[in-house]
Amino acid sequence: MQKNEKLVKEITRRDEDFAKWYTEICLKAELMDYSDLKGFIIYRPYGYAIWENIVNYLDNRFKETGHENVYMPMLIPESLFNKEKEHVEGFAPECAVVTIGGKEELAERLIIRPTSEVLFCEHFRKVVTSHRDLPKKYNQWCSVLRWEKTTRPFLRGKEFLWQEGHTVHKDKEEAEKETLDMLKVYERMGSDLLAIPFVTGRKTESEKFAGAVDTYTIEALMHDKKALQSGTSHFFGDGFAKAFDIKYQDKENKPQYVFQTSWGVTTRLIGALIMVHSDDEGLVLPPFVAPIQVVIIPIMSHKPEVMKTSQKIYDKLKKSGIRVKLDDSDRTPGWKFSEYEMKGVPLRLEIGPRDIENKTCNIVLRHTKEKISLPLDKLDKEITKLFSKMHQELYDRALKNVTDNTRKVNSYQEFKEVLNSHGGYLKMSLCDNPACEKKIKEETQATARCIPFNEEVINDNCPICGQAAKYKILFAKAY
Amino acid sequence: MQKNEKLVKEITRRDEDFAKWYTEICLKAELMDYSDLKGFIIYRPYGYAIWENIVNYLDNRFKETGHENVYMPMLIPESLFNKEKEHVEGFAPECAVVTIGGKEELAERLIIRPTSEVLFCEHFRKVVTSHRDLPKKYNQWCSVLRWEKTTRPFLRGKEFLWQEGHTVHKDKEEAEKETLDMLKVYERMGSDLLAIPFVTGRKTESEKFAGAVDTYTIEALMHDKKALQSGTSHFFGDGFAKAFDIKYQDKENKPQYVFQTSWGVTTRLIGALIMVHSDDEGLVLPPFVAPIQVVIIPIMSHKPEVMKTSQKIYDKLKKSGIRVKLDDSDRTPGWKFSEYEMKGVPLRLEIGPRDIENKTCNIVLRHTKEKISLPLDKLDKEITKLFSKMHQELYDRALKNVTDNTRKVNSYQEFKEVLNSHGGYLKMSLCDNPACEKKIKEETQATARCIPFNEEVINDNCPICGQAAKYKILFAKAY
Repeated sequence: MQKNEKLVKEITRRDEDFAKWYTEICLKAELMDYSDLKGFIIYRPYGYAIWENIVNYLDNRFKETGHENVYMPMLIPESLFNKEKEHVEGFAPECAVVTIGGKEELAERLIIRPTSEVLFCEHFRKVVTSHRDLPKKYNQWCSVLRWEKTTRPFLRGKEFLWQEGHTVHKDKEEAEKETLDMLKVYERMGSDLLAIPFVTGRKTESEKFAGAVDTYTIEALMHDKKALQSGTSHFFGDGFAKAFDIKYQDKENKPQYVFQTSWGVTTRLIGALIMVHSDDEGLVLPPFVAPIQVVIIPIMSHKPEVMKTSQKIYDKLKKSGIRVKLDDSDRTPGWKFSEYEMKGVPLRLEIGPRDIENKTCNIVLRHTKEKISLPLDKLDKEITKLFSKMHQELYDRALKNVTDNTRKVNSYQEFKEVLNSHGGYLKMSLCDNPACEKKIKEETQATARCIPFNEEVINDNCPICGQAAKYKILFAKAY
Repeated sequence: MQKNEKLVKEITRRDEDFAKWYTEICLKAELMDYSDLKGFIIYRPYGYAIWENIVNYLDNRFKETGHENVYMPMLIPESLFNKEKEHVEGFAPECAVVTIGGKEELAERLIIRPTSEVLFCEHFRKVVTSHRDLPKKYNQWCSVLRWEKTTRPFLRGKEFLWQEGHTVHKDKEEAEKETLDMLKVYERMGSDLLAIPFVTGRKTESEKFAGAVDTYTIEALMHDKKALQSGTSHFFGDGFAKAFDIKYQDKENKPQYVFQTSWGVTTRLIGALIMVHSDDEGLVLPPFVAPIQVVIIPIMSHKPEVMKTSQKIYDKLKKSGIRVKLDDSDRTPGWKFSEYEMKGVPLRLEIGPRDIENKTCNIVLRHTKEKISLPLDKLDKEITKLFSKMHQELYDRALKNVTDNTRKVNSYQEFKEVLNSHGGYLKMSLCDNPACEKKIKEETQATARCIPFNEEVINDNCPICGQAAKYKILFAKAY
């Protein structure tokens, strides 16, 4: 063992102090570091690699469904930003503003994009003239700035990485379909990649995006029973089209306004991965999104046959497309076990002299700590099978957390009692008066996460005002 | 043919007005559009897709050679930015400055990154403590801002996309090797992907990066015989390490300063592709970097067997990994021919009823306009072979432009004469007094592009001051 080196990285227990546990994982799994500038984080290689896997997954889905990537300027002239009224009201309070360029005071203030709707609209106005130019389905990968007051790594920051999809369509139906199609892409990312079961639905009037007709959302439930909005898809109708004068000539040569959508997910998904799956030993990552899927740890690595076999296994796994790391450093096996547990590497493969004799190796599954022995000759196939099994188990565990912590309530009294005693999701019907929703938020800190799809109204009357209930709403305290 | 639709997109001839020709290709090949904000461009899907191919190529090379991606904040506190003297002097005049955040005047002015050396240094200071933490080889993909006064699409903009590599090493030798290794990666990108033969060498003292000990460069020669700096790799020595106090404990537990490098290429490479390969019909793209490598154009597309065969060819080519597009729109073949010529698609594949009868199709090579007939059953293999041939021909053509336009000169008089009559690269020896280089620049607008590797001094004395010559320098007028 090395001098000055702690054997294991320790963190606060999850059930003792969830917030502290979360921050310690962010730092000790080396996902990020704080920068000198408050509210801005550094995405370290391991954290950024998780984002790259999300990017690759989504970018493929976007392209398969006919979307193209573009890049718009980072800065938005204030006059352009102010064109759509609701939109500017939503974002103006949290803008970062450039006032100096090349040592000179600028004639017009420039806003660092908090989102790029207005830039896309301005561009669409120029390039869309005929029905033959439609639809245009664009996406942009970039970072955006929002001057948030309280920030937390990945969950809320002054700068974050994201993708923003922006599309224009010939009519309402096509745009509405696109909005829901992209929500489905996000939902499938949860089941296929992140092992997170998202609840999907529509946002209430008070919670929707500034300038949208409808906002749809994917909501995830964290281990502490708080919800996290994990992605949104917006139907804009022709509101932006009218504000920005985006028109096309239809087949009868009549001018028509376009209908638009936008949709996005952010590096917040890394926060969701941490808070849904991880445990007291650190990060737990589902195999398909993990930057390192298997770490090989040689036992008695000074013996040449151990290193030779380790290298052989490495080559074989790498060749079959597995993201594998061989840690042949001079650290002790104990240090390495702790390190890769903290980093949430799904499979640890231990190989020592006796294993080589038996033509087997030991595998430890990160999510259950289960230890199994596998024959060396079928390793790649067995490991690929294990990934699917682990992914499913993590998904099921997260789904159980959702079902165990979703409760229907019939009165405001019951709402408050259940919220205090259990937390989690609360389903309650409500009228469509924003004042009732606001009262709940102010009195309980629980917010309307969404109006879930295909659910019936439970109670006939709004438990707040007594008027007729309109929707069943999923409430929760949220990040 | 459609109403109100010009049959062909026309552009200014290349030899008539090179600058105008360049801009028209940028716009008419739909690579970019101007934004409302002067000096900022919109990367349209087709232009951005070229950048994506460059990104994919380089990202793989970086990862193969042990580099990891990270993401640093977009904003730099002014006090941090001012830490390294030469560096700040080099960049301060072209900074964009944020002074307002969340409606409030900020206590400290924040600079939008023109490059991220200081952020990386600050991070390295924290994470590098032992020799076991070294080397750290990081890369970042992002956009940066430099408040340039005169701008041109892709070549010089207030914002551009790039990658910036930043590495720390235990000693001078390792860092110098990294600097030159990455230069070789860039050079190989020229020969493997862009079909551009780069001249490589070291920058003179006056032309090197602000804060670097040595700057190495890849220089390309455009069709108008002007040079374009296309990428740089910097050896920093321990200058930044001393300014930022980046130290590690060596194996004997003694504190040592690290040695650093940085290296980058930008979307300027798209400009290089245009100005090296393209012609009077528009863009010409080498096949390996082209977003669309083959476009299939059905002739008499109302006939079902034509569309059926077109679709079959499309499926076959796509399956074998070729980036193929089938244009089955209701535009005329003539419109399509012109459109994809303008967009520089390497191969046009025409398929009509008679071709189907003969079990062949017509292929037109974009770079030579050569027309050949290929049997339908071996299309994928033949096309893959054609790509290699076309790539080589484009590279050779560009190399001929370099060799035909590189001249040795022995006196300043000859320098001026050759520069005026021929342009291109001029090789001349010079002393190491920056005043002589400056005089040449001021009087002729030609700048020292680099000190090429492995070249002997030609003339014994500096043609400007008469002192002993030190280097052979490659001069050119440049973008």
